[in-house]
Amino acid sequence: MIDCGEATQLRCKRFNIKLSKIDHILISHLHGDHYLGLMGILSTMHLYGRKNDLFLVGPPGLSEIITIQLRYSETRLNFHIKFSEWIPNAQQVVMENEKLTIETIPLDHRVPCSGYLIKEKPKKRRFNKALMPVNITPVDIARLKNGFDLLDDEGNILYKNSEVTFPPNPNLSYAYCSDTRFKPALVEQLAKVDLLYHESTFADDMKDRAHETFHSTAKEAAQMAKSAGAGKLLLGHFSTRYKDLGVIIGEARSVFKESYLANEGETFTIPAL
Amino acid sequence: MIDCGEATQLRCKRFNIKLSKIDHILISHLHGDHYLGLMGILSTMHLYGRKNDLFLVGPPGLSEIITIQLRYSETRLNFHIKFSEWIPNAQQVVMENEKLTIETIPLDHRVPCSGYLIKEKPKKRRFNKALMPVNITPVDIARLKNGFDLLDDEGNILYKNSEVTFPPNPNLSYAYCSDTRFKPALVEQLAKVDLLYHESTFADDMKDRAHETFHSTAKEAAQMAKSAGAGKLLLGHFSTRYKDLGVIIGEARSVFKESYLANEGETFTIPAL
Repeated sequence: MIDCGEATQLRCKRFNIKLSKIDHILISHLHGDHYLGLMGILSTMHLYGRKNDLFLVGPPGLSEIITIQLRYSETRLNFHIKFSEWIPNAQQVVMENEKLTIETIPLDHRVPCSGYLIKEKPKKRRFNKALMPVNITPVDIARLKNGFDLLDDEGNILYKNSEVTFPPNPNLSYAYCSDTRFKPALVEQLAKVDLLYHESTFADDMKDRAHETFHSTAKEAAQMAKSAGAGKLLLGHFSTRYKDLGVIIGEARSVFKESYLANEGETFTIPAL
Repeated sequence: MIDCGEATQLRCKRFNIKLSKIDHILISHLHGDHYLGLMGILSTMHLYGRKNDLFLVGPPGLSEIITIQLRYSETRLNFHIKFSEWIPNAQQVVMENEKLTIETIPLDHRVPCSGYLIKEKPKKRRFNKALMPVNITPVDIARLKNGFDLLDDEGNILYKNSEVTFPPNPNLSYAYCSDTRFKPALVEQLAKVDLLYHESTFADDMKDRAHETFHSTAKEAAQMAKSAGAGKLLLGHFSTRYKDLGVIIGEARSVFKESYLANEGETFTIPAL
């Protein structure tokens, strides 16, 4: 879960997202609309008897805010929180497992703020089942999946890798950037990201206001997606002044065609580029 | 406003309660369901440009929890919060103005917890308009409202107070008691309260569980209302195990007839005894 505003647990309930399936919560910054739902989620996980560790990643201060509230409520959670606070303005890997890495994206906001870039690690080659060798050993399977040919004892090719396997599925990536001023320097880190979520608090009419308040316009978000060569752009964090989001999506698509509004409750599949 | 769980501001919006009309927020204790909506309400008041002081009353720790979050979000509120933290287990007046007083009700819960007793001050007598003296001075009006007769220069009664005025409207009182074990000693402080809100987390089948978890049953709440000679009893804070609250209200009414469920969104008028 990335960011957790007030009443997020109610939304989870409504959209049937089980809290027990959430093992990592990443907070971008300590403005209320991005973290005030966290204590409630932790309390509910506790009440539901959670035992598994919870990884909590965010800015300096996050652990203090949580810890002080647990202390005053005299709560001893029956699960362990593993806090990880990043260094502001640094690009850091905050999580890594066998499948993916998560790194911070230093953003330009009024308080320390990081987005998150989630990248799948390179995957193994896939067997072409029609041509799959029979009676093959686990060691040979691993060799083929890792891209090697199978050789006989004398070093002759028994099975040429490119003939019995397909290339790996692409390793997908997702970047979450909120809240931030338009920050052209992000292009390098966001290069070729498959799905980019970028805030677009304002439309182009409020460009100056966006700059003053450390936010972006829809056009700027689209410019970022275009410059980075992103697959798809998701727009969010709209100012309540825009009752009709047509102007937002219209401006974004005029710059980057594959732009979409992050409507509440919708699911976006990360597209392979 | 008394207590402020997560998403209270959403409920205010839904029930058309203007945050700008709220000048005092009283928190009973630092369990999440009673205070986690506070930061969000403060943020929204700030965004809406509130200027008036806000009085925040609650247990020790409340100001630290709020202050630390304002610090990390680098928020300078454009209104002033006047914190008042009570002493646990003491009966204290935490607010007083020309119309009413608010005092803490020391409750018996797992963490420091106080209910609140709101009492109107005695009111002035009301004029009987039909018999209202003509050409009366402001000084004489005040004398009559305060219960004095009007005398002429020689000390003879011109207007007898009881003949030209009615008795004052009754001074009403409301007590809010959540969360607490059944605490018979409260009877004295709650004597003759017009409306008593008392938690009833459980029905009588869970009496032992109520005691263990520092909560009350519906029967206990009703017993309190009966012993105190309350006007009406409002029940709330029901365990989610009771899908049908019929058992709760049934048990309460078997002890105290004027028992009601505090259904969300309903308004209860404080009855004069």
